[in-house]
Amino acid sequence: MAVKRLAILGSTGSIGVTTLDLVARFPERFRAVALAAGRNVERLAEQVRRFEPQLVAAADAESAAALRAAVPDFRGTILAGLEGIEQVATVPHADLVISALVGALGLKPTLRAIESGKDVALANKEVLVVAGALVQAAARRAGVNVFPLDSEHNAIYQALHGHRRGDVRRIILTASGGPFLRTARDQLRAVTPAQALKHPTWKMGSKITIDSSTLMNKGLEVIEAHWLFGLAPDQIDVVIHPQSIVHSMVEYVDGSVLAQLGIPDMAIPISYILAYPERLPLTHLPSLNLVAAGRLEFVAPDLERFPCLGLAYRALRRAGTAPAVLNAANEVLVDAFLNERIGYLDIPQIAGQVMERHALIESPTLDELLSADAAARAMASALTTGARLEATA
Amino acid sequence: MAVKRLAILGSTGSIGVTTLDLVARFPERFRAVALAAGRNVERLAEQVRRFEPQLVAAADAESAAALRAAVPDFRGTILAGLEGIEQVATVPHADLVISALVGALGLKPTLRAIESGKDVALANKEVLVVAGALVQAAARRAGVNVFPLDSEHNAIYQALHGHRRGDVRRIILTASGGPFLRTARDQLRAVTPAQALKHPTWKMGSKITIDSSTLMNKGLEVIEAHWLFGLAPDQIDVVIHPQSIVHSMVEYVDGSVLAQLGIPDMAIPISYILAYPERLPLTHLPSLNLVAAGRLEFVAPDLERFPCLGLAYRALRRAGTAPAVLNAANEVLVDAFLNERIGYLDIPQIAGQVMERHALIESPTLDELLSADAAARAMASALTTGARLEATA
Repeated sequence: MAVKRLAILGSTGSIGVTTLDLVARFPERFRAVALAAGRNVERLAEQVRRFEPQLVAAADAESAAALRAAVPDFRGTILAGLEGIEQVATVPHADLVISALVGALGLKPTLRAIESGKDVALANKEVLVVAGALVQAAARRAGVNVFPLDSEHNAIYQALHGHRRGDVRRIILTASGGPFLRTARDQLRAVTPAQALKHPTWKMGSKITIDSSTLMNKGLEVIEAHWLFGLAPDQIDVVIHPQSIVHSMVEYVDGSVLAQLGIPDMAIPISYILAYPERLPLTHLPSLNLVAAGRLEFVAPDLERFPCLGLAYRALRRAGTAPAVLNAANEVLVDAFLNERIGYLDIPQIAGQVMERHALIESPTLDELLSADAAARAMASALTTGARLEATA
Repeated sequence: MAVKRLAILGSTGSIGVTTLDLVARFPERFRAVALAAGRNVERLAEQVRRFEPQLVAAADAESAAALRAAVPDFRGTILAGLEGIEQVATVPHADLVISALVGALGLKPTLRAIESGKDVALANKEVLVVAGALVQAAARRAGVNVFPLDSEHNAIYQALHGHRRGDVRRIILTASGGPFLRTARDQLRAVTPAQALKHPTWKMGSKITIDSSTLMNKGLEVIEAHWLFGLAPDQIDVVIHPQSIVHSMVEYVDGSVLAQLGIPDMAIPISYILAYPERLPLTHLPSLNLVAAGRLEFVAPDLERFPCLGLAYRALRRAGTAPAVLNAANEVLVDAFLNERIGYLDIPQIAGQVMERHALIESPTLDELLSADAAARAMASALTTGARLEATA
C-alpha cells in the first residue's frame, strides 16, 4: 500500500492536531509532507520536529523567523504569509490537502490546491459558503474530489457511499441545539459570551462555538451541504439532536433513512477521509455505547428563537454573493459579541440588516465575492457601533 | 429497463401480499410469474385473477381444486403440494424467488431455487437457522445471491452496501423488546397468549409475535445474521429499542456506526431487495418523522428474563444441528403455549432441555438436519405433556 502524503493547512488547530495524531498512529499509511499554521509557533515547531515535513509555512515573517530559531536542525523550507500557505497547498508531491484554516483565510489556498490537481479534505466551511460555485466548478475542471471533514457532512458522505445519488429524497443535518436549546427568547437577550461558549457536546474554537449556539453554524452547514452534495435547499433539513450521537442522516426515496452515529470525536470523520474508501481501526477510541447513552432525542429547530438558521436558508436561496455576505457579517458580529460590543440577539438582527442592504451579484467572480465580503464586514462593523449606542442609550 | 420476474413462495402471507402490492404499484418493473401459497384459497384466487401468473401452487390437492373452481378462466398451470411449491421455486423464467413460506416448510423449495440458479429474497428465517451452512454452500456453488427481507437484516444489508466487509467490527440487531420489556420475571409466569400476542410496534403472524415477546425471534435473527453476513457470534450484538425505528446497525472498525431507520412498514425492506441496487419511490408511505417520534431508547437485553436469546447464542456457538433443534423445539412449544398447554416460561425452559438432551451432529447433511428437527419436535412434545402435568399438579 502506498503511503498517502498530506499537506495540512491549519496544522496547529484542532483538526490539524487530530490529523497529525492519526499520521503518528498509522505511520505506514500517511506522511505529513507540508504544514501551514498561524502564529502558534511553539506547537508548529513541535510538529516540525516530530513529523519532519519538507515544507512549512507560518502566518508571517516574524512567526517564520521564530520557527526557524526553534528548529535549528530542520533541513526543509520555511516560508511565511499567504504565499507560503499557497505553496503548502500546492506542494507537488502531496496526494491530499487538509483544508483546516479558520475563516475566509482558507479560501484562496484551497482553490489553489484544487487547481493544482489535489484532492481536498475540507474542514473550513467558509470555503464553500463563500465560494461554493467557484470551488465546485474548479474541482470539476481539475477532476479532483472535495471531501467533507465536518462531522455532519462526513456522516452524510458515509450514508451516501455506495448508494445512488438520484435516490436521495433529502438529507437531515443534526444540530446539538447548543447551550440555549431550552432558553426563552427574552432570556437570550441577556446571554453573555461566557454562557454562549459552553457547548454541551463538542469542544471547539470560540467562533464556531458561538455559531453553534445561534444555529448559524448549522445554517452555514446547510449552505455547505448544498455545494457538497448538489442538493436543493428544500432537500436539506435540520433537526435538533441534543445528544450529538447521530451525526446526520440521508433519507432515500423509499423512506429508508441511513444515519451515521458515533462518539463525538473528530478522529472518526478525519480518519474516514484519510483512508477513504477504507477505514482505519481506531482502537484508541471507546465504542459507541447506545445503552449508556440511554436515549436519542429529536426536536424541530425554533426559527423564532434562532433566526440565524432562517437567514442562512434565505442566503442560500438568494445565492450569488448572499452567503458570502451573511458569513462575513456574522464573523464581525460574533467578534463584536465576544468583545461585548453588541448583545447576543444583535447577531441575527444586524446580520439580517446587512443581507437586506447588500446589492446582490448573482454569478460573482472571486474578486466580486471578496469585495462583497469586505463590504459586508464594513457594514456590519458600522451597524455594531449603532447597536452599541442603542444598547447604552 | 427489463421487467424483473418474481416467483413468490407464500404469496398470501403478509410478505407475499406486500410484495404483490409493490408489483401492482410498479407494473413496468416487476411481474409475478409464479405464486405458491397454503390454504387461503380465496386470497390466492384473487391474486391469480389480478396478477395472471403462469404457474400457481396450493398447499394440497383439495386447495388446488378449490382454486381451479374459483378461477375458471385462468389459463396457467395449477399444481398442489410440496412438488408444486418446488416447481414455483424453480420456474425457468423467474429472476428472483421470494421465500416467504412460514416455518421449516420453506427450506427445501428455497434450496431448490438456489440450486436452479435463482437469486433468493429470504423472509423465512428458518431456512438459514436450520440449514445455513448448506444454503450458503449451495448459493456459492450456484453463484446466486441470498438477500434478506427481514427488516433487521435488510437494515444491516443497507448499512453494509458499498462499504468493505473487512472493516466491520460488529453488527447490532435491534429488538422492540416486545410487550413484556418491563414485566418482572414473576409476572412472566402467568402471561396468557392474548397478552403475548400484543406486539407494540409490528403487525405480524402469531408465531413470530410470540417469538418477539420471548426474544427467541431475535435469537433466531442472530443465527440468521451469522449466515447472511459471515460474522462470528461475538460480532453480533442485540439491543432493545422499543420504538422500532432504528432497524439495525453496523459498527465499523473506526467506531462509525451506520444505522438504517424507517417507519415500521415491510414495503421498505421488500422494495429495497426487489429493485436492488436501485430504490423505488414509495410515495404512498409517510416519511419518517423523528421529531414526532420524540425519542429513541436503547436498553440492554435482560437474559435472565428472556433466556431464549441466550439459548440462541448457545445454539449458534455449538453449531451443527443445534440451531435446527432449538428452532424445532421452539415451534412446538409456541404452539403448545398458544393452545394453553404450557406456560409462558415453559418455552425457554423446555427448549433448553431439548437442546441439552440432543446428540449434536457437527456437519449434518440435509437429511440429518431434518431428522434432528423431527426428533426435537417429538422430544419437545413429550416434555410439554410433562409440563402440563406439572402445571396442573
